[in-house]
Amino acid sequence: MSGVVVVGQVGRDLVLTVEELPGAGGSADVLARQELLGGKGANQAVACRQLGAEVGLVGVVGTDSAGTEVLAQAAGDGIDVGAVVRRPGAPTALLVDLVGPRGVRRLLEDVDARMLLGAEDVRAGRGLLRSADAVLVQLQQPGPAVAEALAAASAGGALTVADGAPADGAVRRQVLSAADVVRADTAEAEALVGWAPQDVPGTVRAAESLLEQGPRVAALGTGEGDVVAWPGGHVVLPHLGEDPVDPTGAGDAFVAALTVALLRGESPESAAWWAAAAAAEVVGTAGGRPDLDLDRLRESAARARR
Amino acid sequence: MSGVVVVGQVGRDLVLTVEELPGAGGSADVLARQELLGGKGANQAVACRQLGAEVGLVGVVGTDSAGTEVLAQAAGDGIDVGAVVRRPGAPTALLVDLVGPRGVRRLLEDVDARMLLGAEDVRAGRGLLRSADAVLVQLQQPGPAVAEALAAASAGGALTVADGAPADGAVRRQVLSAADVVRADTAEAEALVGWAPQDVPGTVRAAESLLEQGPRVAALGTGEGDVVAWPGGHVVLPHLGEDPVDPTGAGDAFVAALTVALLRGESPESAAWWAAAAAAEVVGTAGGRPDLDLDRLRESAARARR
Repeated sequence: MSGVVVVGQVGRDLVLTVEELPGAGGSADVLARQELLGGKGANQAVACRQLGAEVGLVGVVGTDSAGTEVLAQAAGDGIDVGAVVRRPGAPTALLVDLVGPRGVRRLLEDVDARMLLGAEDVRAGRGLLRSADAVLVQLQQPGPAVAEALAAASAGGALTVADGAPADGAVRRQVLSAADVVRADTAEAEALVGWAPQDVPGTVRAAESLLEQGPRVAALGTGEGDVVAWPGGHVVLPHLGEDPVDPTGAGDAFVAALTVALLRGESPESAAWWAAAAAAEVVGTAGGRPDLDLDRLRESAARARR
Repeated sequence: MSGVVVVGQVGRDLVLTVEELPGAGGSADVLARQELLGGKGANQAVACRQLGAEVGLVGVVGTDSAGTEVLAQAAGDGIDVGAVVRRPGAPTALLVDLVGPRGVRRLLEDVDARMLLGAEDVRAGRGLLRSADAVLVQLQQPGPAVAEALAAASAGGALTVADGAPADGAVRRQVLSAADVVRADTAEAEALVGWAPQDVPGTVRAAESLLEQGPRVAALGTGEGDVVAWPGGHVVLPHLGEDPVDPTGAGDAFVAALTVALLRGESPESAAWWAAAAAAEVVGTAGGRPDLDLDRLRESAARARR
């Protein structure tokens, strides 16, 4: 299977499930606690690996014991962490996912600015990026790092996938000219499109307008599901799965499955159903870490598509 | 200085300060993160040590890396952790203190039942308990462990201090017959007294009724402050300190300072002011860990008493 390199956030996830968040001054028992490798980049990398890709990660962690632990977990997941920078002076990012009642989450993010990627961090991973078959770039990272990653991915001829909302106009232009696939969730769509789609038909038009600017697949979230468009067609995907536990990580599983499916030669429409099925699996459990299986995903995507 | 042994909870504190807790589905940046030794027992032990006592701790942590870290921190604080049990099979207790907006906290407690003290855990620490000058027992621990600790403390002739709400009637009777000092906060007072004091005069009567049953000092919280009573007198202490940040740990600092002051030969009234001043210091910072200094405490207690 081909190689995917993910450029994005690596950190520590603390997932706390409570029956209900206590009121001011109150306390609540934690029903379940998970502490594990997390961050959008790591979650996307794990998803790609679970779907059979060789995966490398470009990101930043601290020199603290949390950094050591998350890198060991990523390596244990079969991910190449040789291009993850260990930066002293700040703690490894911590992402606290408070889940409860069922289906409702709150996210507390402790990400020191030093845990964001700089252009030089990406440059140091250039060899990895240039040899990749696909590069998945998180637009939440600072503009210079995004620019560097997009340039290296294009230079290497990789399938270039951009996820999220571009930081500013210059980044947006570069994304649209360099990326083969663009993905934005409901909250991010306006920043990527340049105007705010109001409904599903508007989102289809927005996706089509993105295709005119360069990408060959555009995937946009709407309140009701996702729109995936390609030259000459589009599909509107409902939110699959019943009784969601925690929406965290759904978008990461979506973009990872979309990327792997396209790399495997699936059509954009088929890849879109893989993506929707992967997202549905992640929202069925607390926390953002995926637990995907290629055969199961293929089956559930086919079932949903019928 | 004399030796204090604290019997109670040892764990890991994660203190997250946010401007405001996000609504359902939202996210918020963490303004400050602290990860450190915590739990009521550890916080009381640290406070006693900061006030100059030799301190030993009886509690339970896991065999996980968090357990190793909190014990190393306690040892670094100068606390004897030889009697802390390391129990395999469950994670070290985690106490998440969400602070924000200023002055408002929510506590999420993940304490596996295996992290509570059993009678045999306390029995293993009997040597330490019998040689102590003062023993501080947390009534939140299971009844058999509390019973064992109170018996060992009495047998050794220690100043015996019970903190909290007794689990049931049998524990309550043993507390009142064995303890020299009893302390309960507003929420715990009813379980200790046997009926619910309604106001400050009622709380004074409640404290006096406790003295008739054995203890020589009774300290009870009220909504407006604390009442400390001794045979022939009592004092009503206001909440000292301005602009509280986080109430977590106030009661632990209170009971620790009360204990050390009595051990040092202060009168109950003077000890009460030490306790109130110590509590005020802890509520001025996020998290339950105290940062006390004997001379500073003596001064602020004297100032408040005027």
